[in-house]
Parts: sequence; structure tokens; C-alpha cells
Amino acid sequence: MNESTKLPRFALGSGWKELAFVTVILSILFALVYPLVRPHEEANRRMRAMTESRNLLDNQETAWNAGDLDGFMLGYWNDPELTFYSDNTIEKGYEPLKQRYFKKYKAEGKEMGKLTFSDVESIALRNQGREMAMVRGHWKVEKSKETAEGLFTLWVEKKPEGWRIIHDHSSAAPKP
Amino acid sequence: MNESTKLPRFALGSGWKELAFVTVILSILFALVYPLVRPHEEANRRMRAMTESRNLLDNQETAWNAGDLDGFMLGYWNDPELTFYSDNTIEKGYEPLKQRYFKKYKAEGKEMGKLTFSDVESIALRNQGREMAMVRGHWKVEKSKETAEGLFTLWVEKKPEGWRIIHDHSSAAPKP
Repeated sequence: MNESTKLPRFALGSGWKELAFVTVILSILFALVYPLVRPHEEANRRMRAMTESRNLLDNQETAWNAGDLDGFMLGYWNDPELTFYSDNTIEKGYEPLKQRYFKKYKAEGKEMGKLTFSDVESIALRNQGREMAMVRGHWKVEKSKETAEGLFTLWVEKKPEGWRIIHDHSSAAPKP
Repeated sequence: MNESTKLPRFALGSGWKELAFVTVILSILFALVYPLVRPHEEANRRMRAMTESRNLLDNQETAWNAGDLDGFMLGYWNDPELTFYSDNTIEKGYEPLKQRYFKKYKAEGKEMGKLTFSDVESIALRNQGREMAMVRGHWKVEKSKETAEGLFTLWVEKKPEGWRIIHDHSSAAPKP
């Protein structure tokens, strides 16, 4: 009887012991491993963000040079909050920007020419849970009679539909 | 003897029990409270980042309008990696940018005029452990004989010395 009352008490003590042991060991393992895993995870995410935002520009370039202005526009966030800054002009919203591009490059007598992005640099960022990047570089449009070129600074964000430009600030060399 | 071998074993069991109890309760409390605290902490940080990056511009404005171009330059990261994009021109490094500003606004016969920043918008971001923000808005410099104005898109970062502009893309309305 003395043995039988001792056994369940020992079993209970042992249950707590195991729980304590497992919890403590897991906490220690987590504390040791997390700081090692996290930077890798973070570095991978950052690398992916940079690759994917660079792909966005590559796809725009490819579409443009195939004369596919609709395909080029896919790089922009299809939203009224999209912004395009140039000179002292703010173009707001996807539709107005699309119309502006079509008017400038697809209207009667207009030519798209050859688009090249170069010297592209980006920083991967987080905005709360959202993934973003700042991207900057050089753009050039070579047409049969003239070449326009300049710089761009972009804010891009990973939307459910993919990486999209949410803000584009572009400037051009003054016309000669 | 049977009791005396039981006591230390019980005491050890009890120590584990307490450790288990405290660890489990703390883990549960942390799991419950952290998700409630974190967004507030994050919201506060974001609010502070936006206020502080806005202060950076206010301080630049104040310095400029007091004729203090050195004070204005304090808003920029004092580093060779600082970039200033305009037209198709990249100015790299703090010293060249400072020289450019002094040449344009402080040289013989030059005038600083009155600087105004307006419509400033910003997004607070994180780059690994670093705090950053994207800031955009409108700038205007009114001189006695002419007014220049345009747009800017900035990347700012909280450096040990304070919030600093690390990349400035500015454009201007074409001269009439």
C-alpha cells in the first residue's frame, strides 16, 4: 500500500519532470539555433526579393522590346494609388499612367524603340509583414532618330499577384 | 532510511516541478501577450520613424531659410556612398554633393532663396535590424527673380548620428 501510493505520486512527479525537461531543452535549443537560422532565412528572403524585383525590370525590358506595351505595364501596380513622378508632375493611378505611355509610345507616328535598364541596384526591405524593395538604376530608350535616357528610383512591393512598382520617380537628360 | 532517501528525491522532483511550472506559465504568458504588444511596439516605431524623417526635412528647411547651407547638409549621410540623382546625372559622395550645393547657391552672385517642402509622404521600413524610410514630396526654391520647383524621392536611414538621407532623386520642372 505504501508502495502503491508512492508510485502514482512518482509518476506525476516524473510527468512534470519530463515536461520541464523537454520545455527547457526546447527553449535552449530554440535560443541557440534561432539566431543561427534567422539570418540565413532573412538573407535568403532578401536575395529572393532582389532577384524577383530585378526580374520585374527584365520582364518589362523584354516586353517593351517586343513592342508589347501591355506586357510592360504589368510591372506596375494596377491600382489608383500607383504614383509616377517626373519633372514637377505627379501621375497618379495605373490607368492614367497607362494612357500616358500609350500616348507617348504607341500613338500614330510614335515609336517604342529599344529599352535598356542598367546599373540596377536594390535594397530588400520589410514594411510590417509586407516585403518591399527600393530599386534604382539607369534607363535608355533608343529610337531610330533619337535616344532618351535618364535615371529611375522605384519603390516595389510584393503584392499577391507578384512584385509590382508602386512608386516610380524617373528623370531624363535634358534634350539637347 | 527509507524516508530519508525519499525526501531528497521528492525535493529534486519539486524543484523540477517549480521550474516546469514557471517555464510553462512564462511561455504561455509570452505567447499570449507578445502578439498584443508587438503591433503596438511596431506601430510606435513606425510613427516615430515617420516623425523623425519628417523632422529631418523640417530641419533642412529651417537651416536653408536661415542661409545655413552647412546646417542643410546635415540632413545628408556624410559618406562616400551617398547618392544624388537628377536628370541623367549621379552625384556620388557627400563632399561632391556639398560642393555642388555651395557652387549653385553660395557662390558669388548666387542666392539661396526660400525653400519649402510640401506634400511629404513616408513609409517606415526595416532593412534587417536597420530602420529606414522612403520619403517623397514636393520642393520649391523661391528666389528674388525666379522660382524653381519639382519633386523628390528619398531613401532615409537611421544612422548612429540620427536620420540621414542616403539616396536623393530630385527632379525639376523644365525651365520656361
